[in-house]
Amino acid sequence: MASIEEKIEATIQGYFDAFNALDANAVVVLFADNATVEDPVGTPLKSGSDEIISFYERSMQSKAKLQRTGPARINNQEAAFPFRAQVTMPQGRLEIDVIDHMTFDEDGKILTMRAFFGEANTRMLKEGEEA
Amino acid sequence: MASIEEKIEATIQGYFDAFNALDANAVVVLFADNATVEDPVGTPLKSGSDEIISFYERSMQSKAKLQRTGPARINNQEAAFPFRAQVTMPQGRLEIDVIDHMTFDEDGKILTMRAFFGEANTRMLKEGEEA
Repeated sequence: MASIEEKIEATIQGYFDAFNALDANAVVVLFADNATVEDPVGTPLKSGSDEIISFYERSMQSKAKLQRTGPARINNQEAAFPFRAQVTMPQGRLEIDVIDHMTFDEDGKILTMRAFFGEANTRMLKEGEEA
Repeated sequence: MASIEEKIEATIQGYFDAFNALDANAVVVLFADNATVEDPVGTPLKSGSDEIISFYERSMQSKAKLQRTGPARINNQEAAFPFRAQVTMPQGRLEIDVIDHMTFDEDGKILTMRAFFGEANTRMLKEGEEA
């Protein structure tokens, strides 16, 4: 029987795996019914499966790849974790440093997701430039 | 005239500087009146200057040093940022990976602070062992 921490860690890793496989359906099954997504923080909430799957389908059109840049910090039924999103564009590679905050139900399904990143966390790398 | 993002970044850097100088008073002036601290997430809130200064005085007894491990992600009047706390103990060095989430008033003073870290983020290094 997995602990809640193990369930949450599995959900977070599943989130990265599903996103990087560009599989919006596999992302959305990680969310509870009536979950909400605020990405980035300060923008209108997406609520429920339909709005959430549309959001991830749009996000995946940029073929963004997500790379974890540190461990998830898990407390009770909440977690915060850092990662870097890389988006390949005609002009070069866009990199964004993000921290997601999520809350979870007792099964480890995501209830709320809020993504923290601002302009200062976004940079364009020219072709061949190292991150 | 500093933007709200600049005020928040200055508060966050001031927080690290004051903590690492073991100056609890300099930490507490970064907080608004009636601020709250939840550290770690899931423990009772400390509310107001008296409880918050007592909390930081206790935290500083371990001579913890905080080192930023990535940029602050700032959205509107909120921020999340990762860091590592190092505590030197007789048995060796304790390292804890933390993410703080803070909200701020329009002057960049901290309204709420919540610290995310769990057992999986804590490790004891033997003497001479690299982080």
